[in-house]
Amino acid sequence: MVDLIISHCNPLVIEAETDAPVVWRDYDIAIAAGKISAIEPAGRLAGSAKTAVIDGRGMLAMPGLINTHAHVPMCIFRGLAEDVSLERWFNEFMWPLESNLTETDVYWGMLLGLAEMIEGGVTTVADHYFFMDRAGQAVVEAGTRAVLGWAVFGSNGRPALDKTAEFAARWQGRADGRITTVMAPHAPYTCDDDFLRATVAHAKRLKLGIHIHAAETLGQTEMSLKKRSITPIGVLAQTGVFEVPTIIAHGCGILPEDIPLMTRPGMRVGVAHAPKTYLKLGMGLTPVAALQQAEIPVGLATDGPVSNNTLNIFESLRLMALLQKHEARNPEVMTIPQALDIATRGSAAVLGMADRLGQLAPGYLADIILIDMSGLHHQPLHRPLAGLVYNTRPGDVHTVIVNGKVVMENRRLLTLDKGEIIRQVGLNMTRLARRVPENRIQLYNP
Amino acid sequence: MVDLIISHCNPLVIEAETDAPVVWRDYDIAIAAGKISAIEPAGRLAGSAKTAVIDGRGMLAMPGLINTHAHVPMCIFRGLAEDVSLERWFNEFMWPLESNLTETDVYWGMLLGLAEMIEGGVTTVADHYFFMDRAGQAVVEAGTRAVLGWAVFGSNGRPALDKTAEFAARWQGRADGRITTVMAPHAPYTCDDDFLRATVAHAKRLKLGIHIHAAETLGQTEMSLKKRSITPIGVLAQTGVFEVPTIIAHGCGILPEDIPLMTRPGMRVGVAHAPKTYLKLGMGLTPVAALQQAEIPVGLATDGPVSNNTLNIFESLRLMALLQKHEARNPEVMTIPQALDIATRGSAAVLGMADRLGQLAPGYLADIILIDMSGLHHQPLHRPLAGLVYNTRPGDVHTVIVNGKVVMENRRLLTLDKGEIIRQVGLNMTRLARRVPENRIQLYNP
Repeated sequence: MVDLIISHCNPLVIEAETDAPVVWRDYDIAIAAGKISAIEPAGRLAGSAKTAVIDGRGMLAMPGLINTHAHVPMCIFRGLAEDVSLERWFNEFMWPLESNLTETDVYWGMLLGLAEMIEGGVTTVADHYFFMDRAGQAVVEAGTRAVLGWAVFGSNGRPALDKTAEFAARWQGRADGRITTVMAPHAPYTCDDDFLRATVAHAKRLKLGIHIHAAETLGQTEMSLKKRSITPIGVLAQTGVFEVPTIIAHGCGILPEDIPLMTRPGMRVGVAHAPKTYLKLGMGLTPVAALQQAEIPVGLATDGPVSNNTLNIFESLRLMALLQKHEARNPEVMTIPQALDIATRGSAAVLGMADRLGQLAPGYLADIILIDMSGLHHQPLHRPLAGLVYNTRPGDVHTVIVNGKVVMENRRLLTLDKGEIIRQVGLNMTRLARRVPENRIQLYNP
Repeated sequence: MVDLIISHCNPLVIEAETDAPVVWRDYDIAIAAGKISAIEPAGRLAGSAKTAVIDGRGMLAMPGLINTHAHVPMCIFRGLAEDVSLERWFNEFMWPLESNLTETDVYWGMLLGLAEMIEGGVTTVADHYFFMDRAGQAVVEAGTRAVLGWAVFGSNGRPALDKTAEFAARWQGRADGRITTVMAPHAPYTCDDDFLRATVAHAKRLKLGIHIHAAETLGQTEMSLKKRSITPIGVLAQTGVFEVPTIIAHGCGILPEDIPLMTRPGMRVGVAHAPKTYLKLGMGLTPVAALQQAEIPVGLATDGPVSNNTLNIFESLRLMALLQKHEARNPEVMTIPQALDIATRGSAAVLGMADRLGQLAPGYLADIILIDMSGLHHQPLHRPLAGLVYNTRPGDVHTVIVNGKVVMENRRLLTLDKGEIIRQVGLNMTRLARRVPENRIQLYNP
């Protein structure tokens, strides 16, 4: 039974012969039981009396965007750490600020960020933060999809690690399967090898992946080599992290010799690329071209809203494409189809979901966004694919569907109360902005 | 007599002691005869019965944005030249496409781009293109401010140059002073020295400045050094261009030894920085830090919408700031106040208008935009200045005032008919996209 038809839209699909994205004109998309059941030229699909219809006339339909690495609730601290070095960012700003954090802050911060992401067409996020039961509750209410991991430092100790595993077990598959979980140790420089091994043991026992920061900068890699003659990626390989599916956040310090460690048979290691953070904090860039050449999945990410300072995946897409051209001093690299592939199938592959997310095709999960390209900044629309990469803004996202359910229609959020979220977050601004550098949750000293 | 009061807004002003931007809370701005007449704490200013009032409650008021280098009517070709080298971009795409151009295309293209810019808070543009009488007509109708130059190549010959001077004389000071004009030779590599000298003679006779592309890439500078042992900036100095006020577009190939040529006593040379184009075409970057150190004004620009592909100065601002941090691998450079200074006073100085544009202060022209920062992507608003640089989108611009007149209110364009503009441009898409590489208006061979 068809639950929903998006009629007369222009879907972004993968053309079979070329394996490249193309836009078909005037098609209907049918959705049944949370999945895409058919995509056919308009008028061919018939629903029943119960089938809802969304008019997609003139809209580009594409897979919901995926944010492969974020700390969404950090949007409550937006703007509080500017123009400072990475070390000061952690030690004098972020980690002291996070000592203010309560469970309730995480709940409202997660709702705020999820609402911002829905407005910008992001339907899935891999979130790495604290008090994740409350983040999970927010995802249940928002109706979006998430891969949740409860962040933990080695200094928190084994009982804390065990609790993050209990969280992962408790939430795996909840919210009609919209929520999946991972283990989320912070980074090799904050978790010692035994702690990482214990994390791997939990992940294997629970059949889960691991989401971890690693080789965030070349500086971290050099420091690791100096201190212990092994790269951060080498540490992950040696401690068994890569024996379970792994999402590596950032990887700006990945060296050529790290790459074979990430591509052994049976491994599933992907890298989340959050370019705005790297520019803003002077971190260098993920070696996207080298990873792609080695067929290591690369996905788009925002990172947290204190470095980004938003949760805008269209901006990540645009920056990723522009910076690849800039770094290579070659405008012919990272073409529009390649950039869109990273934003869709690449990001899905980083999360290990390439068989069900990141494409509009029958059998795939019905996470679909409709983009209105009638705005002045798109017109005249000679090349919709160019418009998607270089012109599209969150405000162009018209309608958002997750798991077959409409969560935003004509820019109106259907699952969340925007005014109430803003009000709740605003109540605590003074407390949240209080900063005592000695009162930090962790020390950055890679 | 006060014509208009913006009440209860939060103006971005330059703090006298620090010479840095700050936001005042709850002020009224009074406008009389097209200028700001007063900025006072809310409630102190009284208009007459005839004074219009705009409710600025909760809005950030800032100087209208300035686009210091564009080819606005090129938005009719948006998306038609993607993922190609700079040479192919010119020779196989842009210059063949421009052989399709009619006067009427320029008129509608200019209207389209002006409408897009108004929606994004851009109140002034320095435009460098063809058929500029029609562009001027569009500016008259839009109600915005412009510095117009009719682009000319050496190969067009002296009579064509003379005609561009006649255009400049004809339009200087029109539309209540909103339009000023400049001479607009294309570049040193397309205009020989005698042609540049003849341009300077026109500029001196008419008391005008010159707006010219120069040292667009390091490759162009190297080629100039190889062919004639002088840099493109050296050519401008030698041919007398710098004897009149000069706007240099791009300057990614400016060398350290060029800088003294641009800073001799009495000179007024500024550089328009359009970072999105440079990334997209792999051109390198304008040496912003070196120019700033030499006190050469740097302003923000979009360049044309075929390289950009939009006319979004908030994006130029964000990219400029992020890239300065990235290139220096130092997040402490190009701070938020410095970035905002380039976007406001810097851009005004590039156009030689620092005494009347780029600041909210009594006596300055009343080009003011109101920014609505209530959106989810700004909340909670701990730091409005950070939000301006890193979070603000064109869609946040609520109201736009130019020369004391409201041209957009609550996102409704008051001077232009958006639907009709889009319809008119759409009529000619097929003709405009036709491309015969042999049919080009010029050859790129620097």
